[in-house]
Amino acid sequence: MQDDVIEKLIENFRSLPGVGYKTAQRYAFSIIEGKLERAQNFANAILEAKQKIGFCKICGNFTETEICPICSKRDRKTVCVVKDPKDVLAMEKIKSYNGTYHVLFGTISPLEHRGPDDIRIKELLARISQDNVQEVIMATNPDVEGDATAMYIAKLVKPLGVKVTRIAQGISIGSDLEYADEYTLAKALEARRDMD
Amino acid sequence: MQDDVIEKLIENFRSLPGVGYKTAQRYAFSIIEGKLERAQNFANAILEAKQKIGFCKICGNFTETEICPICSKRDRKTVCVVKDPKDVLAMEKIKSYNGTYHVLFGTISPLEHRGPDDIRIKELLARISQDNVQEVIMATNPDVEGDATAMYIAKLVKPLGVKVTRIAQGISIGSDLEYADEYTLAKALEARRDMD
Repeated sequence: MQDDVIEKLIENFRSLPGVGYKTAQRYAFSIIEGKLERAQNFANAILEAKQKIGFCKICGNFTETEICPICSKRDRKTVCVVKDPKDVLAMEKIKSYNGTYHVLFGTISPLEHRGPDDIRIKELLARISQDNVQEVIMATNPDVEGDATAMYIAKLVKPLGVKVTRIAQGISIGSDLEYADEYTLAKALEARRDMD
Repeated sequence: MQDDVIEKLIENFRSLPGVGYKTAQRYAFSIIEGKLERAQNFANAILEAKQKIGFCKICGNFTETEICPICSKRDRKTVCVVKDPKDVLAMEKIKSYNGTYHVLFGTISPLEHRGPDDIRIKELLARISQDNVQEVIMATNPDVEGDATAMYIAKLVKPLGVKVTRIAQGISIGSDLEYADEYTLAKALEARRDMD
């Protein structure tokens, strides 16, 4: 007895990542109960974002311009390789990194049938020679797929005479040893450093 | 360094119930990474739902027509009073109820400054005389606000010579006594019935 128009809206919300039927229904009802102006703004924002936002020709990140603001202003000799655009935002929060990024749009994942050619590795190699890159910082997630992708890329990049580093893995700042999982603890122990 | 167009889309997603910044960002990125056609369908679905869906003149529920399919076909002498449109869907799932509904769009809540005039109680009283209603079933949630709203409405409706009932409260079917909270157990004990 539910109208088709509502069902269609619910189906669209369900297409968002991690949204089930009940959540999609809540979202749809909030649109219907809300003001017309809000629905119009929402629809416009979706269209505008999809129409205006493209991919940076250098790093691959989302941008309104051909080359993103980061690539056009920063030191291109240092490249931080991340999995997704949201990881760029996370890195930018620390405010002390002054290099550029390279967004892979995924990691190598045999389980999900994603091989090296399905992520932006070729583009990274091309940049390295073009921009005379000195250091590649692998900042993929510290999980199985992120580690494997980092190792795969390191093997390709090192022979080009480029320094390849991996962001440190260990106990989070302010967290409790008691709650750290054993893999993190093992990595933290392995990577222990001399104290001054 | 994030584009304004993306920020605007994220803000729109944040306006949905229960959506924080990170979730809104995931939704926005999924739109940008997705196909243009999907974005267009999504935007259209939002506009279409807002433009076509109105409120039933009788029960107040969402509908494409002036009077919703339930009110136009079912027995209007029995009215089940619920808080939200989603509660109508929940009740409809049992498939054995053949009466109509009345959607309050909220419950009386002094904490949220919502009084009796802010929900659709006047409209309920008008229906009772117009449609010669015989029974009003209070199906607001079994919480403090739902109970208070049910009691408030019962006090107004009973003097009109209408039977007022409340959906039963007790242990859920298939659940375990051990995990029931003490209030539910107390209600279940209070409402115990003779066994045949």
